[in-house]
Amino acid sequence: MKSTKVTAGRPSGFPEMLPREQVVFKQMLQTVCEVFELCGFLPIETPAVERKNVLLAKGGGETEKQVYQLANINGELSDMCLHFDLTVPLARYVVEHLNDLTLPFRRYQAQKVWRGERAQKGRYREFYQCDIDVIGTTNPLTDAEIPSVIYQVFKRLQIPKFTIGVSNRKLICGIYETLVSKESLNEFLVIADNLPKRGIDDFYAQMTKLGIMPSDAKFLLKVLEFRGSYNDLQSAFPRLADISLLVEEGLSALKVVYDGVLTFGVPPEYAIIDLGIVRGLDYYTGTVYETILDDYPEVGSICSGGRYDNLCQYYTNQKLPGVGISIGLDRLFGLLKEKGLLPPMVTYVSDVLVIAADDAAQTKALEIANQIRSVGVNCEVYLEKAKIGKQFRYAESLGIPFVIVVDETGSETDTSTLVRVDSGDRQNVSLADALQIIQHNREIQKFGTPQE
Amino acid sequence: MKSTKVTAGRPSGFPEMLPREQVVFKQMLQTVCEVFELCGFLPIETPAVERKNVLLAKGGGETEKQVYQLANINGELSDMCLHFDLTVPLARYVVEHLNDLTLPFRRYQAQKVWRGERAQKGRYREFYQCDIDVIGTTNPLTDAEIPSVIYQVFKRLQIPKFTIGVSNRKLICGIYETLVSKESLNEFLVIADNLPKRGIDDFYAQMTKLGIMPSDAKFLLKVLEFRGSYNDLQSAFPRLADISLLVEEGLSALKVVYDGVLTFGVPPEYAIIDLGIVRGLDYYTGTVYETILDDYPEVGSICSGGRYDNLCQYYTNQKLPGVGISIGLDRLFGLLKEKGLLPPMVTYVSDVLVIAADDAAQTKALEIANQIRSVGVNCEVYLEKAKIGKQFRYAESLGIPFVIVVDETGSETDTSTLVRVDSGDRQNVSLADALQIIQHNREIQKFGTPQE
Repeated sequence: MKSTKVTAGRPSGFPEMLPREQVVFKQMLQTVCEVFELCGFLPIETPAVERKNVLLAKGGGETEKQVYQLANINGELSDMCLHFDLTVPLARYVVEHLNDLTLPFRRYQAQKVWRGERAQKGRYREFYQCDIDVIGTTNPLTDAEIPSVIYQVFKRLQIPKFTIGVSNRKLICGIYETLVSKESLNEFLVIADNLPKRGIDDFYAQMTKLGIMPSDAKFLLKVLEFRGSYNDLQSAFPRLADISLLVEEGLSALKVVYDGVLTFGVPPEYAIIDLGIVRGLDYYTGTVYETILDDYPEVGSICSGGRYDNLCQYYTNQKLPGVGISIGLDRLFGLLKEKGLLPPMVTYVSDVLVIAADDAAQTKALEIANQIRSVGVNCEVYLEKAKIGKQFRYAESLGIPFVIVVDETGSETDTSTLVRVDSGDRQNVSLADALQIIQHNREIQKFGTPQE
Repeated sequence: MKSTKVTAGRPSGFPEMLPREQVVFKQMLQTVCEVFELCGFLPIETPAVERKNVLLAKGGGETEKQVYQLANINGELSDMCLHFDLTVPLARYVVEHLNDLTLPFRRYQAQKVWRGERAQKGRYREFYQCDIDVIGTTNPLTDAEIPSVIYQVFKRLQIPKFTIGVSNRKLICGIYETLVSKESLNEFLVIADNLPKRGIDDFYAQMTKLGIMPSDAKFLLKVLEFRGSYNDLQSAFPRLADISLLVEEGLSALKVVYDGVLTFGVPPEYAIIDLGIVRGLDYYTGTVYETILDDYPEVGSICSGGRYDNLCQYYTNQKLPGVGISIGLDRLFGLLKEKGLLPPMVTYVSDVLVIAADDAAQTKALEIANQIRSVGVNCEVYLEKAKIGKQFRYAESLGIPFVIVVDETGSETDTSTLVRVDSGDRQNVSLADALQIIQHNREIQKFGTPQE
């Protein structure tokens, strides 16, 4: 055996959790997936890796520079890279399996993605994305359904008050193209996307640089700052549709989406038209979404997405339009934890720890544990030789709410001692009664059930 | 836009599933995790990568040669590698978080692992491992509990008749050391491990090569071929314990484990002492497990593990003994699929597809979908403009069992048309009655509930 030891540390930027936190994260992840299935999205899972030419077919983006390539143990590079999002893998999946898929294809995918970011607070190199997309439809009602799914997810997760913002890129693009030109559109979109971060003065300065007239810059700012209902939008900009055909298209799609979001059951205070949502130079071509925590707007969007005309353009000539949205669950979890806003949730696994009062009761303790498990109650038996006090401290440190102490005398009366670990309350009850108390306790702490 | 297209293909050796198969796999994975929690194992999840020096601290194994290293987009190698199992990450995790963990530490972990194997049938480069381990105990009752957890997992998964074999390496090692020598032990273990694959003639030939006397080789073979209960073992080898202290130790541990397995509720026909289980040159030091499908012994073990004296020896001087077992879920899934033995399981997500009879009923259809989802029934609305026939074919191809056809007239009577997709049976019912029928259908097809 070696005498020098290797330091047991993780690479930086790769978070991991202690078990009781992991239990909470796992419930949140499962809740997200359950709501996705509630709304009829099909699960898929793609490999962690894609071929480099597939992954980088679009090219040019910042994210592409952060790709991890795979090499073998001799350091020889392969043609494989870890995926950096779930959208490119979806595009590849759809093209590869098109003959076996039914369109519109409603899929969800909750997997880890990897990005070689500079390690810093709130930035992870490995994190979960939870995506839904609907492929093969241009119907704006689908765009309206997406926010309603997110609304249901966040309500079940008991996320503090949030607002899902909706816009349509055709609006701001159409306005800019008519007012200024198509040429500098991409530059403008970057500036517009940075407005919340950099502020109004910087915006005007950049507009001047682009040679835009102050009156036009002022109008563009007014548009970007608009937040309200569709009626508010009509009041604020009654003649917007006259600007161009593209603007008119964007406006009418936005109306269907906004009305549809409400019909799909999102309360009006949770949905807003926010023309400031631009989504940088992304591949979105119509509807765009961002979601803000009302009390923490400074953290930015916690759930974003949009519509794309042509998801698979790098792999096929077949046009496959779609719409989707993505939740970055680790970032959301980290944020809620930091703000003390994690939902009240079970942080233990075992509902009960079975303890043998003495060696003679050991076999009976195992049999009782079997019985408890057979009715679906999470249970473990303390198998080590240890004083009763140490066994209770074990339960306490794991957050296990109940202990059942088994002794031999119990075999005649068929009762055991049930102890609530937090209060120390004890009672002599039959196993059936103990199970009822334990199950009731889990039931009232259960998380992720619909709330009315 | 580019005119040439990139071929949308996956790297070889990286399997992925179509949605309806994914639904089944997902239920199986979830069932595995649920049983692990039922038995009081805590979930943890470690990053996909570890530092190279941590991952390869043990060194020398075949698996280590299959490690994938990470490089950045410029091809510069990092110090990170994808993990090839979940045991090394567990060892690192335990040492890194030792102060925050309660011992014995019962953890489960169900994650993908990666191995740069030569791509061939049944060999994947990416696959799920589902592991349980208990760290920080030498108690053989813990070794006895492990097979009972696996028994419960496989029963819930409705795996065809299987047998969990148990042995203890101290037995075969002790016998060999006394009979022959300690020097050639490792060579012998490899030969013994290959016995089922290579047969008796090869075994004897190898024994001769090692210079072992025919009578000793015959005795060793008889030991390796033993399969039976502890009583059978005593009858077959009444004086085994006299051979050496190590053999005696192994024997008495094996008795506790075998008896304990039965006390933990495993029926005798599912557990056997199998002295042929050796586990090659692995790090196991005591109890070892393998699990065989009775009707398909040729596929080898579908679930293996064992006890190790010193899990974290490369990272710390603190001795941390433990015991664990691992299910390779993709391989098991592939096998069951190939043999037509996948358990009867729901292969759809949405329980019901809501259809609007005409445009006028669209809004009402959305509202009904909201209502259905609000009681927790998986549901989607068909949003595309399409003939009713096409909408039914959509439901059929996704396996959705029910369609609700909503029309405007229904708003007065509060009834809709509920159609069973497979039979075409239709009835006019209230939404409440429809939901009852739909929920009952899901209930009777539900998978993974305890069976009596």
